[in-house]
Amino acid sequence: MEWISNSRILIVGLGLIGGSYARALKRLGYHVTAIDTRKEAIDYALENHIISDGSTEVDEAIVSSADAVIFGLYPKVFVEWIEKYQQYFKPGAMLTDVTGVKSCVVYDIQEMLRPDVEFIGSHPMAGREVYGVENSDDGIFRGANFIITPTEKNTPQAIRWIGSLGRILGFSRISVLTPEEHDEMIGYLSQLTHCIAVALMTCSDNEHLVDYTGDSFRDLTRIANINDLMWSELFMLNREPLLKYMDIFLDEFASLRDMIRDGSVDELREKMRLSTKRRAYFNK
Amino acid sequence: MEWISNSRILIVGLGLIGGSYARALKRLGYHVTAIDTRKEAIDYALENHIISDGSTEVDEAIVSSADAVIFGLYPKVFVEWIEKYQQYFKPGAMLTDVTGVKSCVVYDIQEMLRPDVEFIGSHPMAGREVYGVENSDDGIFRGANFIITPTEKNTPQAIRWIGSLGRILGFSRISVLTPEEHDEMIGYLSQLTHCIAVALMTCSDNEHLVDYTGDSFRDLTRIANINDLMWSELFMLNREPLLKYMDIFLDEFASLRDMIRDGSVDELREKMRLSTKRRAYFNK
Repeated sequence: MEWISNSRILIVGLGLIGGSYARALKRLGYHVTAIDTRKEAIDYALENHIISDGSTEVDEAIVSSADAVIFGLYPKVFVEWIEKYQQYFKPGAMLTDVTGVKSCVVYDIQEMLRPDVEFIGSHPMAGREVYGVENSDDGIFRGANFIITPTEKNTPQAIRWIGSLGRILGFSRISVLTPEEHDEMIGYLSQLTHCIAVALMTCSDNEHLVDYTGDSFRDLTRIANINDLMWSELFMLNREPLLKYMDIFLDEFASLRDMIRDGSVDELREKMRLSTKRRAYFNK
Repeated sequence: MEWISNSRILIVGLGLIGGSYARALKRLGYHVTAIDTRKEAIDYALENHIISDGSTEVDEAIVSSADAVIFGLYPKVFVEWIEKYQQYFKPGAMLTDVTGVKSCVVYDIQEMLRPDVEFIGSHPMAGREVYGVENSDDGIFRGANFIITPTEKNTPQAIRWIGSLGRILGFSRISVLTPEEHDEMIGYLSQLTHCIAVALMTCSDNEHLVDYTGDSFRDLTRIANINDLMWSELFMLNREPLLKYMDIFLDEFASLRDMIRDGSVDELREKMRLSTKRRAYFNK
């Protein structure tokens, strides 16, 4: 059984992902604490034994007793938190996050951080279209991908630690990318797909469609149920790769439209065969 | 227990949907026969007791003994089949189909059909990304929508019959649309979504993406695994509504791109809230 040596783990930001981490780690026997501004989140987690202790304030005692701290905050709030409270960290503490964009947080945080603690970025590729610790579920990590984004500043010890964390949380595949590679990839795989789902959902206002739909439309719009505050921040912080892929997709879609308009059946079928071939890689 | 009076049912075209119909009807005690040019399909269905009798030829004895005939063929082949073999139908036989486009088949078939048999169009909004009777499964109809497209030529008796057929097959909701309304709706809900999935899948050729992906990309590209022969025919036969919705989607997506490029966060969040609100209607 793999283990991480940091036995006291603090989760800052006890939302869906933070709460799911807490559940998994508590179940494995770690001492898990949490800080979240939402009193309901802390109360729920305490009542349901998802955490051992928690606070709605940034409590110095809780922060300074943690061997590892996992940040489940939105990117900007996360950077502000580090600026404001990093003096509380225990010397030698290991820090990571769950943030969906990397270049814009990893370097800033590593730059400003005390030299006696270490931050290594990571991104769990798992989620649900519901929010809060009340909907947390550590089953979402099974079969999922975990991406770690070390930089030159990270030690081999931290890289081993974050890999172990991913494995004990239950992720199936751990990949290493630079922050820039991560953001490029996420612009296509996650952010572009969310933009497509939103545009598909908002481009028609017929409320009766639900009576006629099949599963394909449901699947394509599942993520059209979207947290506007979080995703608009993520989009803005990753604007360049996202816009690049939006334009690539627009061109591809427009060329498909032209094939249909012009009756270019052979080209259309060729495109569909390519699509089928590429999709085969993604079968779980 | 609802029942349809036609006790001998012939399925012409024993693919995924035809085979799933056959399974459901056989299980309910109907005498089910099938015609399919693929010998493997007929052999498989006979061996697995999905049908009672079958042929790879258009056997006059099989056709003329059927009280009801369900066509699971591609649209053009379906029209040709009727032209060629309609003299075999039993007087009073009831006919329907499972075709994904309606205006281009329903009127032509009703126009050419013998006056002593009746055709009423229907479209089961269910499917899987695999093909053939070997993958058939009548469980796919549970919770699904069934659309019927009667015209002025249809009798109340036929409309009752097709509704009963939908219900005994296990569909959850039966809706009535004109062929034109059906095609308009399908252009948006089904054909546009398939075009989006194909374009999303073909616009990047990075084979390593599978190591990093989350479920949202998988969901959006599930239907990028597409039967190029069938879907290119369906797209061509419904070109006008499909092109209309492709253009509407292109405009909507481009306007989302502009909001992101211009940093119009308030507009972007407004769009996401609209998307979330509309998606709520589609939760099963």
